[in-house]
This record gives sequence, structure tokens and C-alpha cells, in this order.
Amino acid sequence: METIVVIKIGGNIIDDQKALADFLSDFAAIKSPKILIHGGGKLATQLSKDLNIEPKIIDGRRITDEKTIDIVTMVYAGLINKKIVAQLQSQKCNAIGLTGADANIIEAHQRINTEIDYGFVGDIDKVNTDLLIDLLSKNYTPVIAPLTHDGKGNLLNTNADTMAAAIAVELSKVKKVSFIYCFEKDGLLKDVNNNDSIISHLNIAEVEQLKEKQIINAGMLPKTSNIIHALENGVEKVILCHAKNVLPIVNENAKFGTTFTKN
Amino acid sequence: METIVVIKIGGNIIDDQKALADFLSDFAAIKSPKILIHGGGKLATQLSKDLNIEPKIIDGRRITDEKTIDIVTMVYAGLINKKIVAQLQSQKCNAIGLTGADANIIEAHQRINTEIDYGFVGDIDKVNTDLLIDLLSKNYTPVIAPLTHDGKGNLLNTNADTMAAAIAVELSKVKKVSFIYCFEKDGLLKDVNNNDSIISHLNIAEVEQLKEKQIINAGMLPKTSNIIHALENGVEKVILCHAKNVLPIVNENAKFGTTFTKN
Repeated sequence: METIVVIKIGGNIIDDQKALADFLSDFAAIKSPKILIHGGGKLATQLSKDLNIEPKIIDGRRITDEKTIDIVTMVYAGLINKKIVAQLQSQKCNAIGLTGADANIIEAHQRINTEIDYGFVGDIDKVNTDLLIDLLSKNYTPVIAPLTHDGKGNLLNTNADTMAAAIAVELSKVKKVSFIYCFEKDGLLKDVNNNDSIISHLNIAEVEQLKEKQIINAGMLPKTSNIIHALENGVEKVILCHAKNVLPIVNENAKFGTTFTKN
Repeated sequence: METIVVIKIGGNIIDDQKALADFLSDFAAIKSPKILIHGGGKLATQLSKDLNIEPKIIDGRRITDEKTIDIVTMVYAGLINKKIVAQLQSQKCNAIGLTGADANIIEAHQRINTEIDYGFVGDIDKVNTDLLIDLLSKNYTPVIAPLTHDGKGNLLNTNADTMAAAIAVELSKVKKVSFIYCFEKDGLLKDVNNNDSIISHLNIAEVEQLKEKQIINAGMLPKTSNIIHALENGVEKVILCHAKNVLPIVNENAKFGTTFTKN
């Protein structure tokens, strides 16, 4: 099998119907075997509000109580995941929507934290790629929602960035993987206020330097730590870019966004 | 591959947490390759009410407008499907939750009706069993929610009984299929008020006689027409029973409920 393309999209695309439709049309046209991991966006927060359940966020993490895990399960695994699948099917991309619980793809445990009780939030223990590889080899396209399970019957809310990185790492043990992180900007910017200041290439050492200089700062730290994790664990290349550039990057090897490599 | 067991469960089990847990524990213990198709139950109606969206039912069919298809997608494909998957995983049953849109398992079209506009309700055109058979051969257990798609990007609400029968029929073209319909009673009753009056066996001709005598009446007509459809199209045996009796029926060939055969 050729290189597997693992793509993560987040809220900025999911919350924008037109942008999502455009992206999915591009995604369907990618020729390589591909996997899409999607985040949640604002829909879960909106549904909580509509149901008069006040969302609790501590340090940027949603506290997932029993009502909230039901809501994110409905929104992530139900609404968002299946709408993406139906749209991809209409583009002749044979999508199959999954969570980490399905076929035991991602084993996780409830986060243990002595200071904050995150509730039904899952940290990943193990990614089982057998089914994913089998599906890819038969031209199916897995579309994965950010939920895992604990093996005790509980669904767990899991960060989509972390999940995407974990899947890319595990697949890279058996196949060549190109990992594309879509976000709201065109790439990693030297100057956050100047969209033309994209850094085209970085290795891990250079990332560390940019962190020290605080050019990579608060908002980007979790993403870059997932990127470094991926590179240190077998993923050859991570591209951080805007969703609108995914198709030329993959099909034409065009240069957009920031490419990260180990060395 | 041995006989594939196709089981349909409905609202009476899904709405009762204890009954569902008991059933899933039994289901996980079934040794044969197996598929579960589940209905929706009352949760979607409840969520509609909580969101102040008045559910519209005409002739027992839910009218599925744009808001309602979102709600049933959240509840059926999200909450119910993934909770079942997580519970089965905890019982070491390698479940994989799907809808008819996933992997294009069920192609459908929006119902055309000149008198009533049912909205996003799907009538089935084609069942593609390749992936299901492949999954079963690898010991995965498909768990299917009652949603299909129209190939134009729309999800469609589809009757779970009809969907289960269509899946059983299509699988029976390539494998031996035993089709089990779970419902709230112990079997088809000669006297609806007497739970001991179960009819243990019926062929199609006898079903037609019971319809004429109105022993099979309004509530049972759609179910029996699905059963007859299945028998006339290759399914060898349909068993109508209570969910609590599924395990002895399958693993021990015990006699519970009503068995339907063609002749």
C-alpha cells in the first residue's frame, strides 16, 4: 500500500458548513488511502446550552460529566460523524464513520487527576490498527470521531488532536504515514499577526528553539507537542496547514503550510 | 461460515437500561456470527421535547424534518449505537457501530408520497453486504442504527424492522441466516391477553389465515409483513420472541417464541 494520509480537522471547519463541504469535496478527491479524524466544534456547547446544561471548561478542557458525555456522543459520533460520512458518500468516497470504541480501535482509561476531576475524559492506552489497515486496503475511508472507551462499558471524550497523532504513530509502525494537521491559519507563523510569515519547514530542534523564544506560544503548545510526539515515534512528516490546501499538498506535493520532520 | 444470526431489538429494550444490559450480556455470549439492528425508542422524542421541537407522527410514522433528522441521527447513530458498542466491548464482544450510510451499506431514497411529505424518511433500494460479511468473518459484530442515506449527502430515517429484514434477506443470498425479531411479548399470541397462548410455529399460509381472522391485527401487521418478506426472499427461519429468550434459542436451540417458516 502507498503512503497513508492521516488528516485531522477541527472546529473552524466543522462549524462552517460551506468550508466543511469544500474540504470534504477536496478530501474525497485525494487519491491515496486516507483517514479523517474530526474534532467537535461548537455544536456540543450549543446543544448543552439548548438543554440548559451549563458546559464546564477548566484549563481549556471540557469537564465531561454523565450528561455531557451523552451530549458529545450524540454530537461527535452522531451528528458530525454521520453528516461527514453522508457527504463523502455523495462524492463517491466510501466513508465509514467510527469512534475509538468501535472495533476496539482505541483503548483508553478515564483520566486520573488528583486536582481536577475531568469526568468521562479518556487518555489513550492503545491503538489497534488492524481494522483500519484492512478497511484502507479495500478502499474504505475511515472517519473517526473523538471518543474512546474504557473497556468497562464507558465512552470517553478524547482530544481529537491527540487521537489523530496516536493513530498516525501506530499506523506508521506498519505503513508509511503522512500526517496533516488542519487548523485556522495557513501554517506556523513567525509573526502571529502576519499571515505571510509562514515558516515552511521545521525540525524538532528548531521547534524547541521557537518555544524558548515564545514564537510558539500557549495556543500552539499542545499541537506542537502532538507533532513532536508523532515525529519521535515513527511518523516521517507532519504538515500543519489550512484545510483549503490539503488537496494540492497531497495530490500534487505542493508546498503549503509548515512541514515538520524529525531532523 | 456457520449460520449468521441477525437480531432486531426495539424500543421496549432500548428504553429500559436494565433490560438492555441483560440483553447485551446475552447477545455477547452468542457463539455464532451475529449482527444487531436496533430501533430508536423514546429517547429521540424526549430530546425533541427537551429542545422544544414538537415531534410529528402521522399513521405511526415520524415526520422527519431537518431538525428531526439531526435529532434522530444524534440519538440513534450517536447515543444509542455507541452506548451499545461500549457495553458489548466490555463483554469482550468486538462490536462495531454503523448506520446504513457507513461504507454505503444501505442505499435508499427519500420516500415519495403524494399525500404526506414524510421528510427525511428513507425507503431501501439496495443492501451491500460485502463489508458485513467481511467483518463477521473476522469476528467483529456489526451493530446497526436505523439510518440510511440517499447518495446525495442526506441521511434518512429508516424503519428498523424493515432494515433488519432487508439485511437478513440480502445476507441469505450468500450465507445461511437465522433472523430473530425481539419484541415486548413472548411470541405471537392466539389470545393477546393471555401470554401462555403462544403459537409455536407458523408458515406463510397460516399467517395469512390469522390475518383474515384478525388474530394478527393492526399492531402486528407491519412486523408480519416484514417476516413474510424475509421468508419469501431466502431467509430460512424467522423467530419472533422476547429478548430475554434469545440466548437459549441461539446457543441451545431451545424452543421459545414463534418460529416462522415459508412452508
